[in-house]
Amino acid sequence: MTNEQIKIAADTGWTLLTGFLVFFMNAGFGLIEAGLCQRKNATMILSKNFVVFAIATLGFYVLGFGLMFSDGGFVGTAGGWLLGGADNSPASGDLYQGIFGSLGWAGVPLPAKFFFEAVFCGTSATIVSGSVNERMKYASFLIFSLVLTAFVYPIAGHWIWGGGFLARAGMRDFSGSTVVHSVGGWAALAGIIVLGPRLGRYPKGAPAVSVPGHHMGYVFLGGMILWLGWFGFNPGSTMSLDADAISRIAVTTALAGCASTLVATLHVWWRHGRPDFPSTVNGCLAGLVSITAPCAYVSPTSALLIGIVAGVTVSEAPRIFDRLHLDDPVGATSVHLVHGIFGTICVGLFGIKGQSGLPHDGLLRGGGFAQLLPQLEAVVTVGAFSFVTSLLGWIALNKLVGLRVAPDHEIRGLDLAEMGMEAYPGGAALASEEDAAPSTLIAAAGPPSVG
Amino acid sequence: MTNEQIKIAADTGWTLLTGFLVFFMNAGFGLIEAGLCQRKNATMILSKNFVVFAIATLGFYVLGFGLMFSDGGFVGTAGGWLLGGADNSPASGDLYQGIFGSLGWAGVPLPAKFFFEAVFCGTSATIVSGSVNERMKYASFLIFSLVLTAFVYPIAGHWIWGGGFLARAGMRDFSGSTVVHSVGGWAALAGIIVLGPRLGRYPKGAPAVSVPGHHMGYVFLGGMILWLGWFGFNPGSTMSLDADAISRIAVTTALAGCASTLVATLHVWWRHGRPDFPSTVNGCLAGLVSITAPCAYVSPTSALLIGIVAGVTVSEAPRIFDRLHLDDPVGATSVHLVHGIFGTICVGLFGIKGQSGLPHDGLLRGGGFAQLLPQLEAVVTVGAFSFVTSLLGWIALNKLVGLRVAPDHEIRGLDLAEMGMEAYPGGAALASEEDAAPSTLIAAAGPPSVG
Amino acid sequence: MTNEQIKIAADTGWTLLTGFLVFFMNAGFGLIEAGLCQRKNATMILSKNFVVFAIATLGFYVLGFGLMFSDGGFVGTAGGWLLGGADNSPASGDLYQGIFGSLGWAGVPLPAKFFFEAVFCGTSATIVSGSVNERMKYASFLIFSLVLTAFVYPIAGHWIWGGGFLARAGMRDFSGSTVVHSVGGWAALAGIIVLGPRLGRYPKGAPAVSVPGHHMGYVFLGGMILWLGWFGFNPGSTMSLDADAISRIAVTTALAGCASTLVATLHVWWRHGRPDFPSTVNGCLAGLVSITAPCAYVSPTSALLIGIVAGVTVSEAPRIFDRLHLDDPVGATSVHLVHGIFGTICVGLFGIKGQSGLPHDGLLRGGGFAQLLPQLEAVVTVGAFSFVTSLLGWIALNKLVGLRVAPDHEIRGLDLAEMGMEAYPGGAALASEEDAAPSTLIAAAGPPSVG
Repeated sequence: MTNEQIKIAADTGWTLLTGFLVFFMNAGFGLIEAGLCQRKNATMILSKNFVVFAIATLGFYVLGFGLMFSDGGFVGTAGGWLLGGADNSPASGDLYQGIFGSLGWAGVPLPAKFFFEAVFCGTSATIVSGSVNERMKYASFLIFSLVLTAFVYPIAGHWIWGGGFLARAGMRDFSGSTVVHSVGGWAALAGIIVLGPRLGRYPKGAPAVSVPGHHMGYVFLGGMILWLGWFGFNPGSTMSLDADAISRIAVTTALAGCASTLVATLHVWWRHGRPDFPSTVNGCLAGLVSITAPCAYVSPTSALLIGIVAGVTVSEAPRIFDRLHLDDPVGATSVHLVHGIFGTICVGLFGIKGQSGLPHDGLLRGGGFAQLLPQLEAVVTVGAFSFVTSLLGWIALNKLVGLRVAPDHEIRGLDLAEMGMEAYPGGAALASEEDAAPSTLIAAAGPPSVG
Repeated sequence: MTNEQIKIAADTGWTLLTGFLVFFMNAGFGLIEAGLCQRKNATMILSKNFVVFAIATLGFYVLGFGLMFSDGGFVGTAGGWLLGGADNSPASGDLYQGIFGSLGWAGVPLPAKFFFEAVFCGTSATIVSGSVNERMKYASFLIFSLVLTAFVYPIAGHWIWGGGFLARAGMRDFSGSTVVHSVGGWAALAGIIVLGPRLGRYPKGAPAVSVPGHHMGYVFLGGMILWLGWFGFNPGSTMSLDADAISRIAVTTALAGCASTLVATLHVWWRHGRPDFPSTVNGCLAGLVSITAPCAYVSPTSALLIGIVAGVTVSEAPRIFDRLHLDDPVGATSVHLVHGIFGTICVGLFGIKGQSGLPHDGLLRGGGFAQLLPQLEAVVTVGAFSFVTSLLGWIALNKLVGLRVAPDHEIRGLDLAEMGMEAYPGGAALASEEDAAPSTLIAAAGPPSVG
Repeated sequence: MTNEQIKIAADTGWTLLTGFLVFFMNAGFGLIEAGLCQRKNATMILSKNFVVFAIATLGFYVLGFGLMFSDGGFVGTAGGWLLGGADNSPASGDLYQGIFGSLGWAGVPLPAKFFFEAVFCGTSATIVSGSVNERMKYASFLIFSLVLTAFVYPIAGHWIWGGGFLARAGMRDFSGSTVVHSVGGWAALAGIIVLGPRLGRYPKGAPAVSVPGHHMGYVFLGGMILWLGWFGFNPGSTMSLDADAISRIAVTTALAGCASTLVATLHVWWRHGRPDFPSTVNGCLAGLVSITAPCAYVSPTSALLIGIVAGVTVSEAPRIFDRLHLDDPVGATSVHLVHGIFGTICVGLFGIKGQSGLPHDGLLRGGGFAQLLPQLEAVVTVGAFSFVTSLLGWIALNKLVGLRVAPDHEIRGLDLAEMGMEAYPGGAALASEEDAAPSTLIAAAGPPSVG
C-alpha cells in the first residue's frame, strides 16, 4: 500500500469511530429529555428519540445529503439522492472529480462522508424533540422531523458546509454551532410558539410553575453520554487524522465543557443558595454547544473564556423564555439556540487566522470585523430561514394532522393516553404476578399477543 | 517503520476499538433484558449478564478459540488452548505460518484476533440469557453458558469462520448472522422447550397473558447501546482498515437498522392502533441481526430492503412462538434466530459477486442458486447441530442440576428468592433510614458484613 | 506525508479515542456509587461525579500537568502551567526538545498527551468520591478534589511517570495501579477517618449494619461502563499504536477482569450460600485495578492468576475495614487502595524483563527482588505521601469549612436537605399533575424560575 492509501484507511477509521460516538448522542438526548420531564411522559419521549434517528437518516439518505452537499447554488441540485452521483472518493483536492465538490477536501470514501454527515443530521432533530415534549403528538413530531432533516437542515447546511453563499463569504462553523444546534434550536422555538405551553405552566397572575424532571439518573447519564459524543462531534469533524487539529480540538472541547460546568454550578448555587443538578448538566451542554463552531479555530484559553460565559448565560436565558411564556421543558432553546448563536459569533471574536484554515483573525485578536461579519450574516440568514420554514411547517402540520394532544391526555400523561403503556409498568411495589392487573398488561416483546 | 508495519498498527487499533464496542453490547443485552422483564427478577438478569461475559471469555480462552480457529477438519484440533500454538502474526497471506490458518488473512497480532473473537463469543451466550429469564436457576444458566461458548459455538463457528466444510462450500457470513445469532437463537429455543413457559403465561382455554417489562428506560438505553455495539460488530469484522469495506458496512448497517426501526414502529401502530415502544426496539435489533451476515456483500438499497422485511417479520414471528407455547420473555428467538436465518439467506439473495470476496452473485442479482445453496446448507447444518447439542445439554443439566426454580420462587421473584436482594432496595418511598427495616438489609459493597 | 507523520497521526487518533473511553469512566463511577448508596443521597452523588471531572481537568490544566510532567526534581518545576512551555512534540526520543522530557517518549502532539493525562487525573478524584458519600458536604468535596488533582496526584505522579526518583529507581506502573488507584484510595481512607462513619452504621455492642444500595441497574451499567473504560485506560497508556503491546494489554485486561468477576461471584456464593450482585461487580473492578500496573508486563496466564487472587481478596478486605469502623459505602478503599497496592506488587512478581521495557524479571520469574523492591518502595513512599497530605487537607478543610453535614440532614438525605431535590421527583405513583404538590416543585431545566 502507498502512504496515501494508508493515510486514507486510518482517516476512514477515525471518521467512522467518531461518527459512532455522535450516533450514541441519541441515547444521551433521549435520557436527558426523559429525565428532565415527568414520569408520565417518559415512554413517549424515549420512543421519539429512538425513532427520530431512523427517520433522519432515511430522509437524509433519500434527499438531504444530495441537497446539502451536491454541487449547486442556493441548494445542491447535482444529485446525490440515494447516495448516487459521480464521485471518485477517496481522492481529494485537485484529484477530486464528482458532484460533491464541497466534500472534496476530505479524503475518505463517500459512504464514510455520508455516514458522518447522517449522524450529524440526526442530532438536529433530537434538539427539537426536547422542546416540544409533554404535549405533542407522536405522529406530528415524526413528520416534522422528516421535514427538518430532509429539507430545512440540508438547505441551511448547504450554505455553510455545502459550498453555498455563506461559505464563500468566509463564514466558518467547524462542527456546527449554527448548522446543527441553531437550526435545531430555531425549529424548536417555532414549534413551542405554535404548540403553546403545557397546561398550568403559566397561571394567570401567578409566577410560572416549574415542573420537576422525574429522573436525575437519566440526566446524569444523558449528560455524560452527550459529552462523550461531543468528543466525536468536534474532533471528528476533521474527517481526517490531522494530529495537531484533533489534539487541539479535544482540549478546547474539554476545557469549554469543564469551565461551563463549573461556572454554571457555582452561579446557580450563588444565586439561589443551593446547587441545582440539572443546571450543572445544562451548563455543561451550553459550553459544549458554544465551542462547537470555534473548537478548531481558538486557543485553549479562549475556550476557557467561552465556557465561562456560557456557564452564566445558560441559566439566565430561560428567564427570558419564561417571561415570554415560551415553554421548553428541557431548556433546549436556551442550550442549543442561544449558545449555537453565541458559539458562531465566538469564531469572529476569538478565531486565529490560518488555524484550521480560518480566513481572518477574530475581533478580539485584532482582526476587526472581517471574520465577525460573515458569522453574523450566518446567524441572521440561517436563523430567518430556519425559523420561518419551520414555523410554516409546524402551522401546516397543525392544520393537517394537529400538533397537540387532547387536554385530558396531557394531564393523564402521554404514555398511558397515547401509547397505552407506562415507562415502569407494574408500579414500584410489584412483587408478584397478581399485582399486575391483566387489563394493564401489554406485550413486552411485541404487540399484545394472543396465544 | 515500514508501510506494512504502520498499516498493521492502525489495523490493530481498529480491531481493538471495534472490539471494545462489541464488548459493551453486554451492557445493552443486560439492560434490554431486564427492562423487558419484571422488576422482581431484575437483579438476577443483570447478574447473569455481567458474569456471562467472564465465563464465555474464560472458556473461549481455555478451549473455544483453539476449537474454532486452529487447523483441523470437523473442528480445530491443532492446538490454541490458552492462546498457545505456533503463529507468526502479524503476517498474512502466504507469509502466514502457524496453526491458525483460517485467521491468516488478518494481519493483526494473534492476541488482537483472540480479543475480537472472544467478545463475539460472549454475545452468543447473552442471546440465550434473554429467552430463559424469569424462571431459570442462576447456576444452571452459568454452566450452560460454558458449554455453549466452549463447545457448541466454536464447533459451529469452525465450519464457517474456521475453514470448515461450509467455508469451503462457499458459504459466507460476514459478521455472524449464523455464527453468532442463529447459534445463540437455537440454543435459546432448545432451552425454552426444556424449561417450559413461565407460570400462568398460557392459561388453559384463554389467550396468552402478556407480561409487561418493568423499565422502558432500560429498553431504550439497551437498544441504543446494542446499535452502537453493532457498529463495532459489523465494520470491525474486517479486522483491517479496508477503507471501502468499512465505510460501506457502516452505511448498510445504519440503513438496515433505520428501515427496520421505522417499519416495525409503523407496522405495529397500524396493526394495533397505537405505537408500542418495545416493538420499535426489537424491530431495530431484527434489522441489525439481518444485515449482520450480508453487511459487506450487499448494496445500500438492498440493506434498506432487508431492513424493511425484518421490520415486519419481527412482530409476526412471536405470534408463531406464542401459538406453540414457547415462552420467550424478551423475544430473543424472534429477533436472533428468525432473523439470523433470514440474514444468512439474504447473502444468497442480494450478494454482489466479488464484493469483499463473495464467491457468487445472489439469486436476485442473477447469480442463480450458486451462493444461495451454501447459505441454506449452513442454515440447516448449523441449525441442526446447535439445536440438538444444546437440547442434549439442557436435558443433561436438567437431570443433574435442575433448570427451573421452585414455583413459589418464580412467583415471589428470583431476586428475593434466589439472591436475597431486590433490584431497588428500600422501596420507592425510602426517605429516612428508619424505613429500611434491618431485616431486609443486605451488604451494599460485599457480603453481609459483621463488624 | 512521511511514514513517521502517518504513524503519529494514527497514534494521536488512538490516544484520543482511548482517552474518550477513560473520560466515560466518570459516568461509570457516578452510576455505581449512586447505585450502591441510598436513594435519598443519589442526586448529590451524581452531582459530585459530574462536577468533579470539571474541577480535576481545570486544576490539572492550570497547575497539575506542569507539576507532574515538566522537568524537575521532587516535582516538576520547569513550567507547563496552562499548557505553556517549550515543546516540539510531535517529536520523540533524541529529537525531543522541551520541558516535558518525561513525555518525550510519546510521539503525539502535546495537547493529546495533556488530554490523555487529564482524563486519568479525573479518575483519581472520583475514587475518593465513593468513599465519603452519604455524609459529606458538597462544597468540601469539591475543594478537596481540587487539592487532590492539582497537588497530591501530580506530585506523586511525578515520581513515577514524570521522571522522578521512583522512575529512576526502576519502578514501573504501566497504567496507574499506584499513580491513580492507590493515590485515590489513600486520599479516600484519610477522608473516611476524619469524617467518621455514617450514623447508625456501627451500633455499640451490635454487629455493623449494612446499608443496601438503592439501584442494581446503576451498579450493572456502572460496572460495564468502567470495564469499557478500562480498555481505554490500559491499552491506551501506550499513547501509541504498538500493535503487539496493545493487543497483549487488551487480553491481559480482559482475562484479569473475567477471572476476578467469576471468582468473586463464586467465592461469595460459597461463603454465604447465595450469590451477591454487588460483590460480582466489585470483584470485576478489583481484578481490573490489579492488572492496571502490570497489564503490559505480564503473560495472559499471570493476568489470570492476578484476577483469581483479586476475586478473593475483594470480599475479604471490607471485613477488615469494617472491624476498624472505617465506613466506605461503596467499598472503594477495598477495590482501589488494596488492589492498587496488590497490582503494583504484581509487577515485581510476574513481570517479564524487556516486555514493554520492564527493567527486571519479577520474583516468580526468577528475577529476585530487583523489580519487586522498587515496586515496594513506591507503595510505601507514595502511600505515606498521599495519606499524610490528604489527611492534612481533610483536617484543614474540616476546620475551615466543615466536612460533615448536620445529623438531621444525613438522616433526611442529602438530596432534599442540601440540594432541595429528590433524585426521582414526583414519587413512584405520579400519574397526574395534581400529585405533584407545588411546594415540592423545583425547576427542571434551571433554577426555580419565576415568569
